[in-house]
Formats: sequence, structure tokens, C-alpha cells
Amino acid sequence: MEFLIHRDDLKRALTHAQGIVEKRSTTPILASVLLQAGADGVRVTASDKAMTFVGDFAANVATPGEVAVDAVNFFQVARVLPNEVVSVKLAQNQRIDVRCGRSSYKLNGFPAADFPPLPSFDADRSLTIAAADLRALIDQTLFSVAPDDNRYGLGGAHLEAVAEDPPKLRMVGTDGNRLSWSQRPFSGDLGIRSKMLMPRKPLAELRRFLDGLETDVTVGFGERSAVVRCPSFLVQMRLMEAQFPDYRAVLPTSFKRRAVLDRETFLEGLKRANIFATDGSHSVRFAFGADELVLTARKLDAGDAREELPADFSGEPLSVGLNARFVQEVLSVLSGSKVAIEMGDTLSPCILRDPDVADALFVVMPVRLD
Amino acid sequence: MEFLIHRDDLKRALTHAQGIVEKRSTTPILASVLLQAGADGVRVTASDKAMTFVGDFAANVATPGEVAVDAVNFFQVARVLPNEVVSVKLAQNQRIDVRCGRSSYKLNGFPAADFPPLPSFDADRSLTIAAADLRALIDQTLFSVAPDDNRYGLGGAHLEAVAEDPPKLRMVGTDGNRLSWSQRPFSGDLGIRSKMLMPRKPLAELRRFLDGLETDVTVGFGERSAVVRCPSFLVQMRLMEAQFPDYRAVLPTSFKRRAVLDRETFLEGLKRANIFATDGSHSVRFAFGADELVLTARKLDAGDAREELPADFSGEPLSVGLNARFVQEVLSVLSGSKVAIEMGDTLSPCILRDPDVADALFVVMPVRLD
Repeated sequence: MEFLIHRDDLKRALTHAQGIVEKRSTTPILASVLLQAGADGVRVTASDKAMTFVGDFAANVATPGEVAVDAVNFFQVARVLPNEVVSVKLAQNQRIDVRCGRSSYKLNGFPAADFPPLPSFDADRSLTIAAADLRALIDQTLFSVAPDDNRYGLGGAHLEAVAEDPPKLRMVGTDGNRLSWSQRPFSGDLGIRSKMLMPRKPLAELRRFLDGLETDVTVGFGERSAVVRCPSFLVQMRLMEAQFPDYRAVLPTSFKRRAVLDRETFLEGLKRANIFATDGSHSVRFAFGADELVLTARKLDAGDAREELPADFSGEPLSVGLNARFVQEVLSVLSGSKVAIEMGDTLSPCILRDPDVADALFVVMPVRLD
Repeated sequence: MEFLIHRDDLKRALTHAQGIVEKRSTTPILASVLLQAGADGVRVTASDKAMTFVGDFAANVATPGEVAVDAVNFFQVARVLPNEVVSVKLAQNQRIDVRCGRSSYKLNGFPAADFPPLPSFDADRSLTIAAADLRALIDQTLFSVAPDDNRYGLGGAHLEAVAEDPPKLRMVGTDGNRLSWSQRPFSGDLGIRSKMLMPRKPLAELRRFLDGLETDVTVGFGERSAVVRCPSFLVQMRLMEAQFPDYRAVLPTSFKRRAVLDRETFLEGLKRANIFATDGSHSVRFAFGADELVLTARKLDAGDAREELPADFSGEPLSVGLNARFVQEVLSVLSGSKVAIEMGDTLSPCILRDPDVADALFVVMPVRLD
């Protein structure tokens, strides 16, 4: 195996790969990437139990061949190389010879045959969506997915097709105390089986791979896996088997009160009030009244905060307790200048949304105020 | 107590203060700063066992007075305030009322009388030095001072006056494996007693306070303390009692070999070679020969690195083992385009210096190569 590759391509390939491999594995082959040089370039494959990344990168291949090499070591070398052209060559004893300008490295490799077999990538049905839209779906829902949940079906994002014109792909995430959904146009078939979710960590990795991508991607679904393809790479992830809660049942269908605020001002005020919110619960009192929202927080032994924010409010005055961090996270994934909060009574779910955008909705459950 | 202060002044005062106070103290008063509003402005005092900071900040004082308040809580509020003018007022029960725009905070305070008594700031003799020169002295020596040493007199920086014209203040740091000295012009008397060192951590804090300062500072020495004064603040630190080693005895007075390299190229090559240096020891082989320096490193189970660097070398070829991190740190505190290494034999001390600057010198002891 022998090829020339651009330093930036090598760096990009290994950045993706080292996010996936099991870095602290006691089995070295699980911490490695597979390099396969063929006629068209170099294929880089990295895999762990939850997901597999296969990327094709342009290279000038003199001799085809394959070898596995520690992902982190190779990445550390790739990211500091002095020149643009890098020569990679398989030498004796599975040693990989990397040369660039007057720098040279010899990395210990493993026979490609030792690399774990890849899962099959066959999908029954697939859909097509713009990479920018898939990014938006993930950005607006992933933060609400429960970080560690294997019991209640909250550890992954739920997908469904919404029969609008054009049809929309909706992604939903919840941790039981808040819920987010976002939807974007797509074409093709959504082939995910019922009771299957896209797990949180692989979805977060996928989000990184989609950075800056301006093409369409296809998403195919097999029995227990999803495959995301774009021209330069493929990501396969195992799906999670879990019954996602009937989220529509908790969504209020009407509201008694509504406030519209400047999103940035609201976000800054919340950050300040949160300094004196109780650690952990981030509980802040939201008092809505004529023309204003007053945020108050109290931390024992530290002090009190009070923020007065102009608000366009309709309805009877109301005080609710909300987790300031949850509300901050919603305000951070919105981009419009305004945000609307729709409320029922003190303990009813609060709905946050951009008043000018119908394709994303955020629910935060109130907490009891003392 | 009641005053108006500019948000940026308040932020600067509390940034300095919270670097000093004992944040995790179980005695809340030790985690607090003392605020004293007088005719000319507000004085902010923070102290721990090792050092005291006293800063004067411009403020519009309506009612003089004083109170102590938790440094971290107040800092967190100060750094996010929405407007430029901040009103600070002492309310009942030692509560501090902070208002800014439509934000208001009440912080729990303590009676000023509870604040620990300040050390005396009397100094027998003092010297004057430009703040920029004092910064340079600290930057070029502090990294060599041993991080945790109370036994061998290496945990602080040594100061001495060098009788040149103009006289120079020399600061020296060592951890036993490397040594740095740097000297800059000063005037006045160096009044530090023998066997007294400036301890590492307070010196690092002082370095932060000096950032951006373009005035002269005076440094006075008392029995067991030093006081650094500039127009806007004063820092007092306890000195460390320890016998600094006779560092001149280890400095070679001549050399057999000398190499001059491009500093940036050298630094980049070292960083790359260091990837495959043994963890902890950072041991890299430096092979000097005609017109080049070849760096090689080997990490078991990972691989080898080789870097060829152009060098203007005179003397017989030589291989020495050096700690790559130590050499990197020296190269990082130099600013010239070239660096010179002067050597004796394989295990003699290596001297690094800017070939065009006589006022700083760096020694790195070699390690044995296998």
C-alpha cells in the first residue's frame, strides 16, 4: 500500500474516525482505523459497537493495499504535519511509514484482516433530506434527549413523517421534563420501524460529520440500523429499541396566556438570574404581568436576583417556576428576534416557540415554587 | 455605603480579587473581598495566607462605608451586568444591593470588622522597575520554578542585583533539571534578604495583575514580605525562607559545540517529535551534525518520529537526550527569530539563548539515552 494524500484530507478523515473508536480499549484493534487504498482513493473506516463511519478521500494511489492503525496516534501526527503533501506507505511488519517534508513517522499497524467485520449496510427504504435540514433537526431536539436512559424510551430521538405538502420529517426528543420537536421537508420513504429510536451519542457524532456539508443526504433504515449517506461518507448506527412516549398527549391544544419577548434580551436576563438559582434545579420564578416578565431567583447563603424584562403579555398575571437552563437551551437553538411563551396555569406545560416559525416547538414542564 | 461604579472597573477589581481568595473555604469570610468606599473611590481588598491584593478604583461615592462580600458571587454578577453604570448600596443586615439597568441583586455580606487584619506593608528598601520589564522577568523564569517544593529551596524565584551599567535585576528559577534566568534594568535598592525567595503561586498571580500595565512599579522588601506597588494597586506577598542553590556552579563557562536554528521551525519540529516521546519523561534524541539537527523519538506500542531541521552547527557531531517539553517551553518564551544551543558533551548542561540577546539564559540538563 502506498499513496499520496493532502494533509487536510487526512486530518479530516482522522478527526471523524477518532471521535468514534474506543480510545481506552484494552484491545488495540478496537482503537484503530482501517485504511484501504484503491483505484479511486483511500477509504477510512472506524467503528465501535454503536456506529460505523466509512469515508472516501481523494488520494494518489501508487500501490493499493490495506492496514489498520491506531486512530489517535495517527490523528496526532496528521494534525501537525508541516507540508500539504503526505506520503503514506505500508512497510515491513505492518509498520506505516508517513513522510511529509523533512518529517517522518513510523506507526505500528495491524493486519487489515484483524479489523472487526463491518455490519451490513442494506436498508429496505430510504429518504432524502438536505444536510442543512438534518443538522437543524438534530440541533433543535438532541439537547432535550435524556442523557442516560435505557428504561423509559427517552435515550434516543423519535422520527416520524408529517403529512404536509411538502411532507416533513419530524424529530422529537424528551427527557420527561421537557420536549422538543422540529420538522423539515424531505422526500422518499421514512422506513424506521415502530419502537425504534436514533440513540443520542451516535446522533451527536453524526451531527459533527454533517458540519459544513451542503449536499443532500439519504437516510436508509434496516431492521435495527440506520445508514446516513452523502457523497463523501457513510455513517451506520444501531437503532435503540424502546417505546417512545405518546408525546402528543402532553401537548396542550390551547393556552390561556401568552407572552412575546425579545429573544436575546430574555436569554441575557435568564443567564443573570440563573447565577442565583438553586444549584441543580436551576429553578427561577417567572412572574408574567402587564407589559413585563419579572425573573427572580434565590440561592441560600448567596443572595437574590431580580430581572425585569419587557414583554408583550396577554392573559391574567401568572407566576410559574421553570428550570432556567432548560429555557436558556431553547432560546439558544432559536434564531428569530422574538420568542413566544404560551401557558395555561401554574403547573401546566409551557410552550416556547418562534412566533413566526411553525416548524419547531419546545415544551418545558414547570416546577413547584416554594 | 453607597456608590456608582463603571461595570468594567467593578469587573476588573473582582477578577483580580477572586484569583486570590480561598474559594472553597469553610469560613465564608475568607472567601470574601472587603469593599471600602471613601472620598476618592472604592478600595477592594482580597487576601489569603500567601498574598494580599489592594486595588483602588474610581467610583462616585454618595455615602462612605465598608462591607465584606463573597468574591465569587459578586464576580459572577459583575461580569454579566447589562449596562455601564452600576449602583452598589449597603442595605440592612449587611445585604448589598446591586442595581444595573433593570437588573437587581441582593448579596449577603459580612461586617467589615470580621475581615481578617491586613499584614503591615512597611518595607525597608525599594526598587523601581518598568511593569513591562517585571512581566518579562516573570515570564522567562516562572516556568522553570519547581511546582511543589518546600525542601530544596526550588519552590520560588531568586532575585539578585547585577552590577552592570545600568544595574540589572536578575530573576532565577530552577526545578533541579533546568534553570532560567532573565535580567532587566532597574533603579533603587534591592532589599530582599538572603535566603528569601518569591514563591511561585503569588508570583503567577502578580503576573496576571501586571497584564497590560505600562507604568513603573516599585517593589519593596520587609523582613519576610515583598510589596509591589503601582498607581492603581498594591500586592503584598509573603516571602519563602529557603537557601537557593548556588546556580553559578552548574553553569558551564565555555562550550565545545554550538548550533543556531530558526526558532519557529525548531519549535514546530519539537512538537511533532514529542508526540512519540515517552510519556512523562518527554525524552527526545537530539543528534547534531553538519548543517542539521535530527530529532528522533520512540514510544513503545505506538511508533517512531524523525524530524530533520536545518542548523548552523559547529563542533564534533553529538547526540544528547533532552526533555522536549522543557526545550519547547524555552523556545516559547523567546521572541527572536533564531535560537542558539551551546553544548559540552553528552551529559553536560545545554545552554539555550537568543544569540542576539545577552539578558536571558536557559539551561536544560540532558537525560541518558538508552
